[in-house]
Amino acid sequence: MTAGTVGGDLDVELTAGVTAAAGFAAAGVAAGIRSDGREDLALVVNRGPEYQAAGVFTTNRVFAAPVDWSRRALRDGRLKAVVLNSGCANACTGRRGRDDAAQTAAWAGERLAATADQVAVCSTGLIGSNLPMERLRQGLDQAVAELSEDGGPAAARAILTTDTRTKQAAWRSPAGWTVGGMAKGAGMLAPGLATMLVLLTTDAVCDSTELEPALWSAAAVSFDRLDSDGCMSTNDAVLLLASGACGIVPGRDEFERGLTAVCLSLARQLIADAEGAEHDIAITVSRAASQEDAVEVARAVARSNLFKCAVAGRDPNWGRIMAAVGTTRAAFDPDDIDVSFNGVTVFRQGAPDAPREAVDLGPRQVELVINLRAGDEEATVWTNDLTHGYVSENADYSS
Amino acid sequence: MTAGTVGGDLDVELTAGVTAAAGFAAAGVAAGIRSDGREDLALVVNRGPEYQAAGVFTTNRVFAAPVDWSRRALRDGRLKAVVLNSGCANACTGRRGRDDAAQTAAWAGERLAATADQVAVCSTGLIGSNLPMERLRQGLDQAVAELSEDGGPAAARAILTTDTRTKQAAWRSPAGWTVGGMAKGAGMLAPGLATMLVLLTTDAVCDSTELEPALWSAAAVSFDRLDSDGCMSTNDAVLLLASGACGIVPGRDEFERGLTAVCLSLARQLIADAEGAEHDIAITVSRAASQEDAVEVARAVARSNLFKCAVAGRDPNWGRIMAAVGTTRAAFDPDDIDVSFNGVTVFRQGAPDAPREAVDLGPRQVELVINLRAGDEEATVWTNDLTHGYVSENADYSS
Repeated sequence: MTAGTVGGDLDVELTAGVTAAAGFAAAGVAAGIRSDGREDLALVVNRGPEYQAAGVFTTNRVFAAPVDWSRRALRDGRLKAVVLNSGCANACTGRRGRDDAAQTAAWAGERLAATADQVAVCSTGLIGSNLPMERLRQGLDQAVAELSEDGGPAAARAILTTDTRTKQAAWRSPAGWTVGGMAKGAGMLAPGLATMLVLLTTDAVCDSTELEPALWSAAAVSFDRLDSDGCMSTNDAVLLLASGACGIVPGRDEFERGLTAVCLSLARQLIADAEGAEHDIAITVSRAASQEDAVEVARAVARSNLFKCAVAGRDPNWGRIMAAVGTTRAAFDPDDIDVSFNGVTVFRQGAPDAPREAVDLGPRQVELVINLRAGDEEATVWTNDLTHGYVSENADYSS
Repeated sequence: MTAGTVGGDLDVELTAGVTAAAGFAAAGVAAGIRSDGREDLALVVNRGPEYQAAGVFTTNRVFAAPVDWSRRALRDGRLKAVVLNSGCANACTGRRGRDDAAQTAAWAGERLAATADQVAVCSTGLIGSNLPMERLRQGLDQAVAELSEDGGPAAARAILTTDTRTKQAAWRSPAGWTVGGMAKGAGMLAPGLATMLVLLTTDAVCDSTELEPALWSAAAVSFDRLDSDGCMSTNDAVLLLASGACGIVPGRDEFERGLTAVCLSLARQLIADAEGAEHDIAITVSRAASQEDAVEVARAVARSNLFKCAVAGRDPNWGRIMAAVGTTRAAFDPDDIDVSFNGVTVFRQGAPDAPREAVDLGPRQVELVINLRAGDEEATVWTNDLTHGYVSENADYSS
């Protein structure tokens, strides 16, 4: 990876997305769901020969109608298409919202020789408004007509909201199969999952019973470790479709590795384009007693508004970090913790060390390491700083 | 109460503080701990005849040296004096910090015919810096010389950090006893406790075994329900000293009522002066299945940066509220929740109701009510909006 990354090289392509894998076609059209005339409706179709699928969804108990629909559609582990729209989240819309989600799937199915429950739907945008169904229907007609094996980038554009750029990634196995994907994020980025729509595709031959654990595993170390603003969305969905079009059965480990690389790339692209952010912060907790401890500590720091403001102000404020660490149940001795920013240890074994001036927080990438000296486990959570830009995007403009 | 309140009339005086009750003297002096020459050292002395005391402290596991000292000093339920300083939190300062806290108490004891462990110490200010002990010693000399029964306001001034005004409150019982107090807050305002120092005094005749449950009970519905910025401090302390000087044994219920009124007043004064805040928001969750549910839901909303930004932008954004409600484990049906702002129901039984324009979020006071329709319990949590001012105070200026 190049621009906008946090962390190392993932060896993925950034210009290819959901149509990188064989067997998939996509389109992105302007259906008039958004008021600004931009592309707002994406259609991604699995042309087979297989239609295996898996998904993970928001754990928010106030979940949107499309989440409800897609969760049901995935019960048999098969999907032939996904309809995604921006400009309207179809959340908190009651029975009408549920009917609209079902109708969207039914219309797409009619046009693709599929049943409604072979079609997943994803929506993102303003909570509480209804989908303009007539425009959506006409948009579907256009999208079906424009379906193409080169349609990935257009689909990636159509799902953006306050994102400033598309997020795509693809990983090609030397064995001949490919996994690719696209994502949108920007606001309400916090786990279980971060606020996002992600659609992943592969041409490998995989049964849905194999796809599901691989997807959970990959999401757990990528999307579930984003915590941009601590706010959990009503619409998160990460879907994985497998066409089997390349005819190759991948090794389980290699498949999980490739899938994880794509998920990590998309996750980092999400953080790099989060609302108003000026810094991408990788919070690594090292020498923790357990993975759970490492993640809990990293997440507590990622949720500290005071810490996030300090980074915006280019201040390596370890005091605010220690105050956040102290709110957790993780194993540690406060007098035996180190904190370093970009390799400079500003707090060592419970006492101030290098002066704050030794740390340069000018660059966008910030690597924070908190050494708990309590074990051998390590985990990284990605977050952003809290800036005037974030307040402006979420206060000065309605949404 | 008048200015700066959230909620109803508490019938307390706002110009009297820790010396409102008989038997207490106080002073506030400029010892040079702060660099700006303002008062920064407060001394409050209980002149008896009794010296009963109780306290509650931060639950942060990274707690400051003065918290460690004062918790130990309170073990026997007796205190003769409290030394409080601003300008330095004496937190994350290791053994030297612990020695400095002990030395401060010893010096104060020498000057007041008390033992060191009859003196509590409280510090607030920058984490990670050491107390200037020589200046502190000289400041103590001056404070002892200036001790006065009118010294409450000076003491209240000396504990301020980024606060813009003093916080004092006193409640006088018709029976003849009084409870008063002072507080400082401003940043890191979140529970368990909010980031604050609070010193309460009473001339009622109360044993420490009676003071403690009364203080826990009062703090639980006041300081523990502030959540200005979600950040928990290393230095929080709420102390209650009883001199018995008025010779009256209060009724238990009336004492708890008076103490709670003072705590609520101080809590609301803290919210009204939180860093950068433009709105004081009372989040009331009604018809919850339990108190725990009500508090969990209110706190989840109070922690939503997106909601807090929306209020800053005067947008009654119920979608962001519902997204936060959905992250809790409370009993509710998403299709049967009402949300109202300042009496206007914008979301009713799971669907949009009054238009957003019907709500005027111009005034500083915001009353948000979330009706869960799941029971008969109710709780209120107080928070602030998330503003450019908050980012400025915590990013643009070092601390």
